[in-house]
Amino acid sequence: MIYFDNAATTWPKPEEVYLEVDRMLRNCGNPGRGGHRMALEASRVIFEARQEIASLFNIKDPMRVVFTLNTTEALNIALKGVLKEGDHVITSSMEHNSVARPLSRLKEQGVEVTIVKGSEEGKIDPEDIKRAVKKNTKMIAITHASNVTGTIMPIEEIGNIAREMNLIFLVDAAQTAGVLPIDVEKYNISLLAFPGHKGLYGPQGTGGLYVKEGIELVPLKEGGTGSRSELTLQPDLMPDKLESGTLNTPGIAGLKEGVKFVKKVGVNSIREREVKLTELLIEGLREIKKVRVYGPQKIEDRVGVVSITVEGMDVGEVSHILDREFDIATRAGLHCAPLAHSTIGTLKSGTLRFGIGYFNTEEEIIKAVEAIETIIQKNF
Amino acid sequence: MIYFDNAATTWPKPEEVYLEVDRMLRNCGNPGRGGHRMALEASRVIFEARQEIASLFNIKDPMRVVFTLNTTEALNIALKGVLKEGDHVITSSMEHNSVARPLSRLKEQGVEVTIVKGSEEGKIDPEDIKRAVKKNTKMIAITHASNVTGTIMPIEEIGNIAREMNLIFLVDAAQTAGVLPIDVEKYNISLLAFPGHKGLYGPQGTGGLYVKEGIELVPLKEGGTGSRSELTLQPDLMPDKLESGTLNTPGIAGLKEGVKFVKKVGVNSIREREVKLTELLIEGLREIKKVRVYGPQKIEDRVGVVSITVEGMDVGEVSHILDREFDIATRAGLHCAPLAHSTIGTLKSGTLRFGIGYFNTEEEIIKAVEAIETIIQKNF
Repeated sequence: MIYFDNAATTWPKPEEVYLEVDRMLRNCGNPGRGGHRMALEASRVIFEARQEIASLFNIKDPMRVVFTLNTTEALNIALKGVLKEGDHVITSSMEHNSVARPLSRLKEQGVEVTIVKGSEEGKIDPEDIKRAVKKNTKMIAITHASNVTGTIMPIEEIGNIAREMNLIFLVDAAQTAGVLPIDVEKYNISLLAFPGHKGLYGPQGTGGLYVKEGIELVPLKEGGTGSRSELTLQPDLMPDKLESGTLNTPGIAGLKEGVKFVKKVGVNSIREREVKLTELLIEGLREIKKVRVYGPQKIEDRVGVVSITVEGMDVGEVSHILDREFDIATRAGLHCAPLAHSTIGTLKSGTLRFGIGYFNTEEEIIKAVEAIETIIQKNF
Repeated sequence: MIYFDNAATTWPKPEEVYLEVDRMLRNCGNPGRGGHRMALEASRVIFEARQEIASLFNIKDPMRVVFTLNTTEALNIALKGVLKEGDHVITSSMEHNSVARPLSRLKEQGVEVTIVKGSEEGKIDPEDIKRAVKKNTKMIAITHASNVTGTIMPIEEIGNIAREMNLIFLVDAAQTAGVLPIDVEKYNISLLAFPGHKGLYGPQGTGGLYVKEGIELVPLKEGGTGSRSELTLQPDLMPDKLESGTLNTPGIAGLKEGVKFVKKVGVNSIREREVKLTELLIEGLREIKKVRVYGPQKIEDRVGVVSITVEGMDVGEVSHILDREFDIATRAGLHCAPLAHSTIGTLKSGTLRFGIGYFNTEEEIIKAVEAIETIIQKNF
């Protein structure tokens, strides 16, 4: 299997991730909910995972890292925990449904939403965001990179605007955590939602949210936290406040190993490798007549997500042939981001998406380009 | 390690669970988000898990089984998805904070809450529930068995009241799924919240909610569902409506094997074994002076959860000595259920809790009783 669906979930994971999940599953208790050694070991491992993530994103206090089921949950906690009736939020037309759909719900509840439109390359102009700020603006919510076009957003500039205007800055790092350097201090990020199972190479069922000190969120869920059990009100203590119920301990243990792997290889080396592979893919695809490549022209403006359409063919069919005839895994459709497709003009057709990961090789890229050529020539 | 913290999370899990988690982790894609074989295999396994759970609880349509991070999330979805300002809900004083805390939040939002008090044994009288019903009553939310006293609640009678009065019936099966027979039709259950990692012997990070046909919930989270991606509104399709973002695929795969194990052994055999072990433990503990055992006198009125206090000793200290000196894992404190402790008079002291599971043995029970005796005699 040649795997190009890394934008959905990375595969394979480093061997240490598999081993650590298995070790914890075979040995772990319920963290924070018992004083015996197995429960303490679970607590220790979870804390270590918080520390690894904190250091990766330059988060000073690991207790401000909250574990969630996935990025979507983190984004829902962030958006619904902050925005109330009468508040205004600025977002972009390049967002995934994990931002767009909660915002649609909040709109029904009286939250005002401004959607700043991206260019045909999926780029957002920070000046457009600045211009959208109003008296009641509370938050800017933006993806770090589009999951459709791979476009990297100018989050440092946007972070500066948020700082200047004293706005809460929420960043969706679904496509960038572990792939691009992220520094919550430098970028002035107030809330960072990240997946565990993509660029951090952890298992599915993991994700998280960084919450800057001073940002008070209304929890999405209340329940047992193992702390202040005498209260029938949710405790204010972080991360407990936002982490009700039993955590995915084996998953988080695996994520810890994924993050260690990312740090060992180095985000910059991972980035370098992905840039090289992405460039090779785009160059190859651009030479094929009938293929249209979306997203930024400049390689430095994009992550390893490449969307294409093929003239005269349905992208679902192309993806299916790639799988069946060439053992190449891609993804076709709207990638849960209809506004982004409207922006680049592919809402009807969808796109065929290649999601490149650290474990892909140049040989795989070459095979993929050849496969697309063959499919077009044979007109399957 | 002699493990008596099964009420928090069961340990060990059947070998098949470990193997299936590892297999999926090494081979799985993101279910429902790609047409390639790895993604399809993930979808297939998740559907199989839904089917296994549906058949265990006599749920006709597997698509009404929603996967969540844990029982707490399932309970939050159920309570907040149904109850609106002006609605009345009846619950009990034996609830875990996973019910009590969301209800405290909903109370702030104008939901009326009646808490029916349990007896000293933790029993709830269905007549008290019936008497509490008012014009605006929408839901009865009750635990199937207390996580403090082990008391089994009369959910069949309560289900009949709910049917008669046309109320939504939410059952928290945190301590009973896989341990007691549960039939959503027979008990008239509208919403069943269950853990994956306790009596169903799956991994931590799994749980679920059954939603009866006709019950419309407002989702707690919106986001990518892999379905109706062209919409920035959450689709109404089940289970997608309540399952935004990437699922814990390896965890759910493990849960599937856990449920298969439960069905292979048989819920009745599991129950029989746990009753026998619980009886042995209670008989042994009752013979020790200074030990007070809480909960129902009759063994058939309880699950394998046994709470005790020791005269003149702090339960935390007893639990700690059991761990350190005897390698016996228990749990001490309030078990995230302060109202239940108020009910039985242990809010200040907390209790030492033994949570018995299928993999415990008579020998372990005898050792635990002896350990408690020794601790009291030596007065550590």
